[in-house]
Amino acid sequence: LRRRSNRIGLWLIGATGRVGSAVALGLAALRRGGVSRTGLVSDLPPFRGIGLADPGNIVLGGHEIRSETLLEAVQTAHQKAGIFDAALMRRCAPDLRALQRNVRAGTLLGVGPTIRRLSEDRRIPRDASARAAIERLSSDILAFRRRHQLDRVVVIHTASSEPPFPLKAMHKSWSRLEKALSRRAPGVLPASSIYAAAAIEAESAYINFTPSLGASVPAIEERARQRGLPYMGCDGKTGETLVKSVLAPMFAMRNLNVLSWVGQNILGNRDGEVLNDPKTRASKIKTKDRIVARIVGGSPTTRVSIDYVPSLDDWKVAWDFVHFEGFLGTKMSLQFTWAGCDSILAAPLVIDLARFAALAQQRGSVGAMPHLAFFFKDPMHSDTHDLPSQWAALVDWANKTRSDR
Amino acid sequence: LRRRSNRIGLWLIGATGRVGSAVALGLAALRRGGVSRTGLVSDLPPFRGIGLADPGNIVLGGHEIRSETLLEAVQTAHQKAGIFDAALMRRCAPDLRALQRNVRAGTLLGVGPTIRRLSEDRRIPRDASARAAIERLSSDILAFRRRHQLDRVVVIHTASSEPPFPLKAMHKSWSRLEKALSRRAPGVLPASSIYAAAAIEAESAYINFTPSLGASVPAIEERARQRGLPYMGCDGKTGETLVKSVLAPMFAMRNLNVLSWVGQNILGNRDGEVLNDPKTRASKIKTKDRIVARIVGGSPTTRVSIDYVPSLDDWKVAWDFVHFEGFLGTKMSLQFTWAGCDSILAAPLVIDLARFAALAQQRGSVGAMPHLAFFFKDPMHSDTHDLPSQWAALVDWANKTRSDR
Amino acid sequence: LRRRSNRIGLWLIGATGRVGSAVALGLAALRRGGVSRTGLVSDLPPFRGIGLADPGNIVLGGHEIRSETLLEAVQTAHQKAGIFDAALMRRCAPDLRALQRNVRAGTLLGVGPTIRRLSEDRRIPRDASARAAIERLSSDILAFRRRHQLDRVVVIHTASSEPPFPLKAMHKSWSRLEKALSRRAPGVLPASSIYAAAAIEAESAYINFTPSLGASVPAIEERARQRGLPYMGCDGKTGETLVKSVLAPMFAMRNLNVLSWVGQNILGNRDGEVLNDPKTRASKIKTKDRIVARIVGGSPTTRVSIDYVPSLDDWKVAWDFVHFEGFLGTKMSLQFTWAGCDSILAAPLVIDLARFAALAQQRGSVGAMPHLAFFFKDPMHSDTHDLPSQWAALVDWANKTRSDR
Amino acid sequence: LRRRSNRIGLWLIGATGRVGSAVALGLAALRRGGVSRTGLVSDLPPFRGIGLADPGNIVLGGHEIRSETLLEAVQTAHQKAGIFDAALMRRCAPDLRALQRNVRAGTLLGVGPTIRRLSEDRRIPRDASARAAIERLSSDILAFRRRHQLDRVVVIHTASSEPPFPLKAMHKSWSRLEKALSRRAPGVLPASSIYAAAAIEAESAYINFTPSLGASVPAIEERARQRGLPYMGCDGKTGETLVKSVLAPMFAMRNLNVLSWVGQNILGNRDGEVLNDPKTRASKIKTKDRIVARIVGGSPTTRVSIDYVPSLDDWKVAWDFVHFEGFLGTKMSLQFTWAGCDSILAAPLVIDLARFAALAQQRGSVGAMPHLAFFFKDPMHSDTHDLPSQWAALVDWANKTRSDR
Repeated sequence: LRRRSNRIGLWLIGATGRVGSAVALGLAALRRGGVSRTGLVSDLPPFRGIGLADPGNIVLGGHEIRSETLLEAVQTAHQKAGIFDAALMRRCAPDLRALQRNVRAGTLLGVGPTIRRLSEDRRIPRDASARAAIERLSSDILAFRRRHQLDRVVVIHTASSEPPFPLKAMHKSWSRLEKALSRRAPGVLPASSIYAAAAIEAESAYINFTPSLGASVPAIEERARQRGLPYMGCDGKTGETLVKSVLAPMFAMRNLNVLSWVGQNILGNRDGEVLNDPKTRASKIKTKDRIVARIVGGSPTTRVSIDYVPSLDDWKVAWDFVHFEGFLGTKMSLQFTWAGCDSILAAPLVIDLARFAALAQQRGSVGAMPHLAFFFKDPMHSDTHDLPSQWAALVDWANKTRSDR
Repeated sequence: LRRRSNRIGLWLIGATGRVGSAVALGLAALRRGGVSRTGLVSDLPPFRGIGLADPGNIVLGGHEIRSETLLEAVQTAHQKAGIFDAALMRRCAPDLRALQRNVRAGTLLGVGPTIRRLSEDRRIPRDASARAAIERLSSDILAFRRRHQLDRVVVIHTASSEPPFPLKAMHKSWSRLEKALSRRAPGVLPASSIYAAAAIEAESAYINFTPSLGASVPAIEERARQRGLPYMGCDGKTGETLVKSVLAPMFAMRNLNVLSWVGQNILGNRDGEVLNDPKTRASKIKTKDRIVARIVGGSPTTRVSIDYVPSLDDWKVAWDFVHFEGFLGTKMSLQFTWAGCDSILAAPLVIDLARFAALAQQRGSVGAMPHLAFFFKDPMHSDTHDLPSQWAALVDWANKTRSDR
Repeated sequence: LRRRSNRIGLWLIGATGRVGSAVALGLAALRRGGVSRTGLVSDLPPFRGIGLADPGNIVLGGHEIRSETLLEAVQTAHQKAGIFDAALMRRCAPDLRALQRNVRAGTLLGVGPTIRRLSEDRRIPRDASARAAIERLSSDILAFRRRHQLDRVVVIHTASSEPPFPLKAMHKSWSRLEKALSRRAPGVLPASSIYAAAAIEAESAYINFTPSLGASVPAIEERARQRGLPYMGCDGKTGETLVKSVLAPMFAMRNLNVLSWVGQNILGNRDGEVLNDPKTRASKIKTKDRIVARIVGGSPTTRVSIDYVPSLDDWKVAWDFVHFEGFLGTKMSLQFTWAGCDSILAAPLVIDLARFAALAQQRGSVGAMPHLAFFFKDPMHSDTHDLPSQWAALVDWANKTRSDR
Repeated sequence: LRRRSNRIGLWLIGATGRVGSAVALGLAALRRGGVSRTGLVSDLPPFRGIGLADPGNIVLGGHEIRSETLLEAVQTAHQKAGIFDAALMRRCAPDLRALQRNVRAGTLLGVGPTIRRLSEDRRIPRDASARAAIERLSSDILAFRRRHQLDRVVVIHTASSEPPFPLKAMHKSWSRLEKALSRRAPGVLPASSIYAAAAIEAESAYINFTPSLGASVPAIEERARQRGLPYMGCDGKTGETLVKSVLAPMFAMRNLNVLSWVGQNILGNRDGEVLNDPKTRASKIKTKDRIVARIVGGSPTTRVSIDYVPSLDDWKVAWDFVHFEGFLGTKMSLQFTWAGCDSILAAPLVIDLARFAALAQQRGSVGAMPHLAFFFKDPMHSDTHDLPSQWAALVDWANKTRSDR
């Protein structure tokens, strides 16, 4: 007899990072009760009654290459970024210790030198090939699912950004890529795509919350469709880009001509440290920078800078200056400063995505999920970048899902 | 034989103010060509082919109580606010002189003491009663329409803000108000409502671009419907509130809890001077302050300050600080500074409203036009305050209008 | 035999408020070691070797009218404002409990209605007259000094701001005021001045860290000189005004013409709540607003707004917009946003003032101490408002003190 | 018989650039009267009666490599940056045309590729060697002096920033450099140093208002001392760095620990265009970035970004974010946005420097003038970076000069 409950697992790549540990603390807090659901999009009225799993029932696990535990990560964030209430941390410490048992060694295959340096853990296995890595990682996910008797597991990539990875001919179809996976040479796939492939082999929906490549490889997308799985990405829209995605349409709707849009982002967490590498930064900047011109059209001068400022730790401060032209050539400006805590902004969206993706998988969705564009800076297979339209698409999907039940 | 051309007139209350003179210069520039249509919402693709009048064909006139001419107003703005290109001003000077001939004396009946002080013009007639004023003012509009052979005239109120005006029993129905109009006592109606009544008597659509009362008197609305006329208001959404109307929905869509939203507005034009009067400021602040709670719900702390800073002249600088709570009770912030030139932002919207209202009247619209909520801080008969929804309503109306042609 | 050590006491009016509890935690932390002396001006090189008491040796006591303890105040600040490290609080909790024994009941005589409302403590004695209050309060200070074998005690007023208090003829000389003190009528002196008088009777230097009247009564100043005591105030310069006091001189030195300087302050602590009363706010705004014109001369438009925004708790956010004119009449702007934690900024300055005032008293200073102008928004008997000049005066005094030893 | 008047010339390198043309318009306006002296430091009370030349008597000339005239430059600035009053421009147009006759062809020797590209003027002579260039340029200055019967001419470098130029052994002494000057190879000296050498040969004081090398070559400094001439630089302190030089000392005086100071500069004039070249930008960033650590000590994270944003034209917008630590490890922040018009800020300082340098030369000053550090981001032979100390040094010099008369 099958359980009627809808038990889902959330498997994070980068499980004990700042986002992962905030997700862990948040899930524990939601399970224990006494905290608000602020920040959880999936808790809003339009998404009630469509069959989403209860966040208090989501079981967390994941891959990690560093040795810091979930509890340590939470304490470090508290100390350096001034976040998390002392009483809440105390109450949830046992849960974090328990969840720690669901964390498995990730892979160092296909990571850049910066990320490799972050892994001080000597116990990370050295995978001989991409195929070997995929097999090991997918068996971790399957074992997690069995052990916790989960109906399905959603894999969400929340590890650090990777440098750009140029695609070759072998990445165009699964049959060609499959052959290459056994090669002992590195460089067949970046780590994020190895994790994506492992998720697919483990029959999991895959979500890429980073600007890394992940499932955005034609061969991997093909494989996901073959296996009947949904996926989505890229790059969670948590802060500055979120604001852009509502302000840029405002200028467009008012026929105000955006001349320039300059953004300066400063942050001090590991993501910032990794982005301090110019190549990696380049791929992040690309997804952040494109959005304005995509929404307002024309050819405004757009610049996005990202600087690593360790004292900020998990806080991201973004200053955007918009220079625009109104009637009779008059130049005016709008500037904003966003001061947000990255992991706190990301964590509820990760939980949202787990809920939405699990439901989509349950209902037989296959391929990219453009109705989740709302959550991403660079949504796969979607040209919709303004937030209100993305919201409308998500609500439409929810309404259809509700009426289909 | 009737002309097939769609000739419309735009009659401004406050004709030679900063907004009025910017409209005049803009219409002249559009007629002469060589300037862009940036800032004109009605020029965007969704509104093409629905039958709007060409802005170059709009004839301007209006009521005014001050003696400054359109040309002088433009030159003062240039000198004090640094706006308007010298070459453009030179080219359009003859047009401004010609349009000046369409300006008629407004009324001092029902204006507050601050506005009365602004009128140094001894030639303003002293109207014996509201009825007398309405008759004189409406005959000015009718004469303008005949003289320029206009198909219809849209009256738009762009004069300074009035202090709040409490409604009494007599304002509830036209039959009761009509009797009161003949009284020789002042205080039957504020000036803005006298102009609204005059517009209606002259068979003109009436638009209130200010927070003053205007047509928002049940008796006057009733009269407009009796005479088969459309109207709309209140208070053009040009700057800080415009930004709020896209940022507030962002917080709502992301389930982020807005704790406080504080806005400080500084401006130096006549509007700022008039708003320096605490009573008048109160009515302006009301329309500016309500919007956040209406969009995000709950009971955030909201404050709006307006200060008169003469050195800014026609520039309005607004600083907004939004304090919001995310996941696990974490407090974060967003702040923005808007630096916009008020008359430059308002002028194209006034032209848009003239085009949209004339088309609505031509197509037989009667009563409030909630599809124009997009343009107002406090739209009449509308609960829609977020800009994307207002935009959708305007585009819907345009699509219906197009398919009805 | 007299102890050679320089043991000083710090007696706070408003002992368990946000500033008081931060001072208590700070002194405990400094005594236990392991924290930096960041924020303590008196720890900078120019003030070494002049004979200041060690902060770790300062004993804290004070008057209070509310029932919240030091430890509770610290915990509330942690929870609401996100300040104070959990580990530090845990380590210093015993010290806070011990210091709590030095807190005595303040007076409700001469407080405004807002402050009276804050006192839920039924055990506050009802003083029959100002004289009775002065006697009771000064005997508390003297008992504290004896009990802890202190060489001297500095009294610092850190209670909430009072509404303006108009001076009368009786306030002009001590002989006249002394007679009035016995009257049973309220309104002879505001509470802050009763505390100042009590400090003087207890042979203590008195510092007014608030904009309240305190010692700024000619009769009380006369009495302090009679008793050979030093005093200073008013209103600690912790945030926005501090920034003004370096930026305004910059414009002056560059011959840039400040046209307008508008400041908006928002804060959410008890000070903010008390300042929500328009009368009290008026007196605060006066000391904050005057500084710009005093430094740059001329008659710039200056405005200071203060708004109570509870969600900010102890954080003060100030936005200042400076509109200035440069060469050939060109208007430019500078704006800044200060985000500071009020009690954290004030606490080290309170410790500094205790050290500086105790040393001044020890060296026989009598009357106002203009060399401490550096610490105040509205320094008594000083026309120096720019920070660099105030700093130079403080360093000069330190150098003289050092060479006199 | 010698004229008793104190007639000075101001020879600008980059004569018809934005700064040069603003200086020209400003001098013309001051001569004609009716404009204020706002922005002229040398007009402040401390500098009266020390013998400075009247700005209305300063004759302008200079070298230029582009073909745009002074009048055209002023009109372009008006049109693109919205500066300069139309009436003022009209009144001074004849003066600008007259001054244009004092402009001579500069040199293309030693300029970088970006600057070479800016010179569309085919009439610029091709100098065969640095020596040839120096001779030609110095004879232009001498001819200007003779023609206008000037007592002395101050040469001020206001041309675009050059890329960094590494010094070699030959640059260490004048005797070695002199030999190298005749070489036909390029690369002996950057253009800015060729102009400095020409100034010296023409017996002129030399001021470097840019971050280019100029006189900061040991051999050239030696030569200036040999010829008994004063000089100073580098890089006029007009905007963001000016603000830093008063804010950084504030943190130091309050013992607040600056953790990070990040600055983002955006500008759209030719300087911005030239700085778009990464190499040239590097040298500019160096002088802008060093100042904070020099003032506050320690090792704060400091970053300065400069981005070219054409729509801003001559406006520079700078956003600075200061992250600082106060008492008990509490992190707080200050951020500011500066919106200044570069040429308008620079022009009066250029006039100030001409007046101060001419007086110094008249009084026999030889070598660097550290009392002028007040005007520079990276003052030669000076360790004083905070503005108040620099101001004090300038006033001291003025007082000494006055008492020596």
